[in-house]
Amino acid sequence: MVKKGLAEVIGTFFLVFIGTGTAVLSGNVVGTLGIGLGFGLAIMVAANTIGQISGAHLNPAVTLAFLVNKRMDVKEFVIYVVGQMIGAILGTGLLRLILGMTDLGVDNLAQTTYQDISTAGAFIIEMTLTAILVFVIMSVTSKKGETSYNGLAIGLTLTMLHFIGVPLTGMSVNPVRSMSPALFVGGDAMSQLWLYILAPLVGGLIAAVIAKTLLQTEE
Amino acid sequence: MVKKGLAEVIGTFFLVFIGTGTAVLSGNVVGTLGIGLGFGLAIMVAANTIGQISGAHLNPAVTLAFLVNKRMDVKEFVIYVVGQMIGAILGTGLLRLILGMTDLGVDNLAQTTYQDISTAGAFIIEMTLTAILVFVIMSVTSKKGETSYNGLAIGLTLTMLHFIGVPLTGMSVNPVRSMSPALFVGGDAMSQLWLYILAPLVGGLIAAVIAKTLLQTEE
Amino acid sequence: MVKKGLAEVIGTFFLVFIGTGTAVLSGNVVGTLGIGLGFGLAIMVAANTIGQISGAHLNPAVTLAFLVNKRMDVKEFVIYVVGQMIGAILGTGLLRLILGMTDLGVDNLAQTTYQDISTAGAFIIEMTLTAILVFVIMSVTSKKGETSYNGLAIGLTLTMLHFIGVPLTGMSVNPVRSMSPALFVGGDAMSQLWLYILAPLVGGLIAAVIAKTLLQTEE
Amino acid sequence: MVKKGLAEVIGTFFLVFIGTGTAVLSGNVVGTLGIGLGFGLAIMVAANTIGQISGAHLNPAVTLAFLVNKRMDVKEFVIYVVGQMIGAILGTGLLRLILGMTDLGVDNLAQTTYQDISTAGAFIIEMTLTAILVFVIMSVTSKKGETSYNGLAIGLTLTMLHFIGVPLTGMSVNPVRSMSPALFVGGDAMSQLWLYILAPLVGGLIAAVIAKTLLQTEE
Repeated sequence: MVKKGLAEVIGTFFLVFIGTGTAVLSGNVVGTLGIGLGFGLAIMVAANTIGQISGAHLNPAVTLAFLVNKRMDVKEFVIYVVGQMIGAILGTGLLRLILGMTDLGVDNLAQTTYQDISTAGAFIIEMTLTAILVFVIMSVTSKKGETSYNGLAIGLTLTMLHFIGVPLTGMSVNPVRSMSPALFVGGDAMSQLWLYILAPLVGGLIAAVIAKTLLQTEE
Repeated sequence: MVKKGLAEVIGTFFLVFIGTGTAVLSGNVVGTLGIGLGFGLAIMVAANTIGQISGAHLNPAVTLAFLVNKRMDVKEFVIYVVGQMIGAILGTGLLRLILGMTDLGVDNLAQTTYQDISTAGAFIIEMTLTAILVFVIMSVTSKKGETSYNGLAIGLTLTMLHFIGVPLTGMSVNPVRSMSPALFVGGDAMSQLWLYILAPLVGGLIAAVIAKTLLQTEE
Repeated sequence: MVKKGLAEVIGTFFLVFIGTGTAVLSGNVVGTLGIGLGFGLAIMVAANTIGQISGAHLNPAVTLAFLVNKRMDVKEFVIYVVGQMIGAILGTGLLRLILGMTDLGVDNLAQTTYQDISTAGAFIIEMTLTAILVFVIMSVTSKKGETSYNGLAIGLTLTMLHFIGVPLTGMSVNPVRSMSPALFVGGDAMSQLWLYILAPLVGGLIAAVIAKTLLQTEE
Repeated sequence: MVKKGLAEVIGTFFLVFIGTGTAVLSGNVVGTLGIGLGFGLAIMVAANTIGQISGAHLNPAVTLAFLVNKRMDVKEFVIYVVGQMIGAILGTGLLRLILGMTDLGVDNLAQTTYQDISTAGAFIIEMTLTAILVFVIMSVTSKKGETSYNGLAIGLTLTMLHFIGVPLTGMSVNPVRSMSPALFVGGDAMSQLWLYILAPLVGGLIAAVIAKTLLQTEE
């Protein structure tokens, strides 16, 4: 059980360090597609390494869906989420450490805020995109075999969702991915953090219900 | 049977919401490659989720090819196409709802029109590109196994076809993908809609005949 | 046997129509990466459709390597190459037909010429890149199973080789891919055509020898 | 054994010729994403060809991790690393030969230097990114089956790491990839070479220890 929590620490560290690192360091060069690939391929990396231990959730919205569909119990849920929070903070922490050794400054840690959309709109987008991501995860992980391909399939799903999310909400679909930079930089990222926590969790719940209703594999 | 129709609703919603959403929200940043990936990876998402239920057609031209090659009956055909129409309208509807919560306006819903090519040329392009897509789908789905990879293979096919289609016809190859934005915005998208319905269906028929003639798996 | 030749016609038509069509219609937008994906994913499409019939060579340099390593006989070789020539001409022909229905003109059919490199340099590049491509094809097709993934692996190999080839020789690595546009436009594309035929064939021979020497599966 | 060394020569030649060739010839067009794909897909090519012979390490940091986790002995280690050095020099040598036949000059061979980050920062980045890459390789190669997909998974991991590495250290994570251009161009690339050799080796060691501690497959 501790090993699973440790696996989530490592995997979420990969996701946040590489994903937000790509946005901060190469975002102006590789654009939305590149940022989406940074986050998406980091999921593939996590799936290909610690995936065999914990399943590579890396995201409380995913873990919540597994909990409500009775694929894990409350104790596991807590261990996973604590591991994800630690991993995310380590990822942002290393990025900040590295940035402090350059001329780039430490103000941009790829924190998420919404500005050109209403709060209701931001909530709907984060909720919907998370629901799509979690629905994919619930579906592909419920089938046996082909585990190595799953990581790529889930990762490319996250990549694609960036095309919708980046221009509207900065793209989170993951409470700990938004929480960690917000802890370091504060400001709007902190005052709007509730939305980036709540909307993905609601999206995960919706996906869990749809998966359970629709997919035989969830019964 | 109802479950299959519902699966087509969900899958086509993914295709239209993500695909046209990418074109509207990120098209100026991610370009033709990114738009192609938005539509293509949405097919992968549909295949990875509702694919096991309905096969993830998402497109009346695909379903027509399955009908004429006797892989499904007329009743199924009708249920699939109705599901696809509903899903497409839901996708465009959500995109319009979101856009109404931003400063972007609701005039651009990624509707398809042709301007710099003759009607005959537009017809040939939509027919040919659809025939290639449907031929790929008929081929990969007629083999057993490897189903999770199929979604990626079909999706990347659609991505690639955008390189030809976007500059010439705006790229549809799918009657409901063009119908749904046209219903919302009218104008040229509506007056030219007949072409975006007819040409893909003819292309699907051609692919079905070639597949039946050429591939043993279709016999 | 006729069926295999017909399969090569269709597959090479896909390669040339989509590949050169991408270069002509979207090259200025999607860049070298997109052009490489146009050609590369067209190989995947061919492999996923007619691959089960003919193996989707699409390229005389590939077929020559199969001949010298005794994977096929001379009669098959001739049928394959004739099929590839017909398919390439159909691909360029359709592209030219479509372009004639637009304002783009029919002078650019993605013909290959080298200008900023010596003839020896152009020869070395076309020979080396073809050798790498054919070596990959000889390797992945000599293993059993996983046939659907092979098309993607070979296609992405061709994509990657464009990063080297496009800026130096315009990128061919395939005699019929260069011959077909040259027949339509003449000029330098025709006077330099010998190099785009000879260098890939030499590269294919080198790959065949290395494969036979090095890989147990070729023995 | 000699055959394995020869396989590493060929594979590392692919990596350095295509990877650094992409950076030099197309880097200004395809950007960081394209350069990352040049290096990453070259790994896929090596895995798909000589992977069945030597495992396609192509990198002393990878081979060191295999040594300390007792997957190979010292004699094999030496043969692999010598093969990698020869392959890298051949790759840079061919690139330099080709560039000499153009107007591009031979000063840019994609040598690695760090300028806008402290030495400690550069060390941490090269060490961390190598650790992630080697951890992925140790993980996916310890599982049976699916070998052809492994090359793509490892390659895309390297692609993604470029988003972090290129802007900070020019991206090496491989001692021979930095050594070879440094031998040809000297200057900062040579005086800073110790870091590009030492940091990846330390990163490889860290990955080996984490893999052994965490993954059952390494026990």
